[in-house]
Amino acid sequence: MACNEQLATNGCYNRGLRGSPELSQEAEGPMVKTIEWTEEGVRMVDQRRLPAEEAYVTCRDYREVADAMRSMVIRGAPAIGVAAAMGVALGVKNSRAATLAELRADFEKIAETISQTRPTAVNLFWAVKRMRNIFEKSLARDGSEPEKIAAARADLIEEAKRVLAEDIAVNQAIGRHGMALVQNSANLLTHCNAGALATGGYGTALGVIRSAVADGKKVRVFVDETRPFLQGARLTAWELAKDGIPVTLITDSMAGHFMKRKEIQAVIVGADRIAANGDVANKIGTYTLAVLARENKIPFYVAAPLSTLDLSLASGDEIPIEERSPSEVTHLAGVSIAPKGIEARHPAFDVTPHEYVSAIITERGIAREPYKETLKALF
Amino acid sequence: MACNEQLATNGCYNRGLRGSPELSQEAEGPMVKTIEWTEEGVRMVDQRRLPAEEAYVTCRDYREVADAMRSMVIRGAPAIGVAAAMGVALGVKNSRAATLAELRADFEKIAETISQTRPTAVNLFWAVKRMRNIFEKSLARDGSEPEKIAAARADLIEEAKRVLAEDIAVNQAIGRHGMALVQNSANLLTHCNAGALATGGYGTALGVIRSAVADGKKVRVFVDETRPFLQGARLTAWELAKDGIPVTLITDSMAGHFMKRKEIQAVIVGADRIAANGDVANKIGTYTLAVLARENKIPFYVAAPLSTLDLSLASGDEIPIEERSPSEVTHLAGVSIAPKGIEARHPAFDVTPHEYVSAIITERGIAREPYKETLKALF
Repeated sequence: MACNEQLATNGCYNRGLRGSPELSQEAEGPMVKTIEWTEEGVRMVDQRRLPAEEAYVTCRDYREVADAMRSMVIRGAPAIGVAAAMGVALGVKNSRAATLAELRADFEKIAETISQTRPTAVNLFWAVKRMRNIFEKSLARDGSEPEKIAAARADLIEEAKRVLAEDIAVNQAIGRHGMALVQNSANLLTHCNAGALATGGYGTALGVIRSAVADGKKVRVFVDETRPFLQGARLTAWELAKDGIPVTLITDSMAGHFMKRKEIQAVIVGADRIAANGDVANKIGTYTLAVLARENKIPFYVAAPLSTLDLSLASGDEIPIEERSPSEVTHLAGVSIAPKGIEARHPAFDVTPHEYVSAIITERGIAREPYKETLKALF
Repeated sequence: MACNEQLATNGCYNRGLRGSPELSQEAEGPMVKTIEWTEEGVRMVDQRRLPAEEAYVTCRDYREVADAMRSMVIRGAPAIGVAAAMGVALGVKNSRAATLAELRADFEKIAETISQTRPTAVNLFWAVKRMRNIFEKSLARDGSEPEKIAAARADLIEEAKRVLAEDIAVNQAIGRHGMALVQNSANLLTHCNAGALATGGYGTALGVIRSAVADGKKVRVFVDETRPFLQGARLTAWELAKDGIPVTLITDSMAGHFMKRKEIQAVIVGADRIAANGDVANKIGTYTLAVLARENKIPFYVAAPLSTLDLSLASGDEIPIEERSPSEVTHLAGVSIAPKGIEARHPAFDVTPHEYVSAIITERGIAREPYKETLKALF
């Protein structure tokens, strides 16, 4: 199903961005639906199986949504936020609670389960908090207990759908702001997947690239394969190729070489959490690219929605970094690529200090140093 | 067969290093024979199949040696040098030339074929040149044509064996010089494989680590997996684990993260070619580590024999960088990991400018800036 059809469905939430230049790119290439709410449950494309197979899973229970998040059926900070919202809505929808007290207890259990899936992407906690606010508002309405329970169910489903639709609109706004930073005929480098698959649709870093292309700019995107999960090779290369945007796939270890040879003019990545001072947690390997970019006098851009900002943290030192299973390093597609029993580490994210970040592109505009002031001002 | 047995076989060439501290480490762990001369031909462990399988191939024709070099059955600059020497010896041994003119023509054909396998590692050309010198000397001897032909055959085989034996001794000398740079209780980072498998035995970067361990130092080695060929995950992790040296396997994208967290105290790598000014060509990803090391105030060491130095090149800009097949990036163990038909790049090496290199460890001692003077002085 094309992305514009998805936008049509959620049209009432897209803040009047339909018909703006950045949408035409989407209309041209059929794009997968990362996540959607259906009568049967929460439907997601299984990102572990892309690009070999475009398979969908439908989670009929909130615990299945949590499992899908943990096992990376769905990944990418904004998409994790949408999945969290839908997981909470699904859990409350299926709750057998007959009283408000029972429903509250169920809500806490659901929120706790969803919150414990991934520690780094703050969008998850942002989404759960947003759902909690709606839940409380619903219960504070006039009416009987059964009426309040029914209202909470309906309101949470509506809110989850809104989180998705808003995310798409937010990405388009990020693209609109960011495309001015993309030079014509530039080779851009991106890491991991900050595209339609990492969000409700359109993408953050890839959203900026899509907008620049829709604006008539010619670009080539160098895509880091992004070990160990290969989001770059499997997802970003696939997304961009579907859109007809020229792609050059490289290993993570090659980025520095191409920067030094002046074959890359800008780096643009997404983010999983941004602290108040502008420090950026993102997929492991991002810090390396930022250091290499500064060394080679290449701008390093971060594209992220405001929901990725965590102003409660003074610096990136406070961002929890998820350590995933070492088996994801020692094995690839189930095949061992290292000696049996070897010790491995797998920090899934790293923190890029703000001094390496040339600009942070949000849906409300572009922030630059001093981030402590400029990020705050965006709220 | 244990490495000390290998040393015993070639004992006459090891320059009296037997019994010195760094050898005891070898005696403890059985190590594979990377390459050896046999009556049947040149025998190598197939490094493409390690660590899953310890399989050996015997090349009975010089073209098979060339194929093995090209397809990376054997890799690593010093090992490529040994393979080149043995390939030339094998070619001349099997030559049906009945006259000196025919033998000269065959020699040129053999040398040309061997020289065209890999462009970056200068040890290859160094070895071919060395074999050419021996060849000329043999032909300049007194005697009949058939006697000269027989002498050339015998001399080249002897010289090829000497190249192997000397390489092992040279590595041990590198280890002896370099071990002083390794601090006790340090975590070291290495990239690719600069070990016994990359050399005649013992290793350059890993030789320094082996010597430090034999000297009683406790170290842990962080091993970059080294995409796309995974020499780190497959070969270095395997070698070190065999020696009982603690290993932590990481992806290439994680090195910066661990440096920033002060979990790595030094980086040590091998080299494929070093220019007169100290610029170092080595496995793709090395430049990135050097930049990260300097940014994090961590020493960055290169361990290499003098045969890796190419004083005919003023700087690293002149070093030819091999571009290998993109299919080695898009496929892993025959399995596609990227969308079909995607464009990929595969520079197999990069160049680290000398200003990032803290020291170059050779068999004749340690060189530091200004490399233009210190490297020349080592000859």
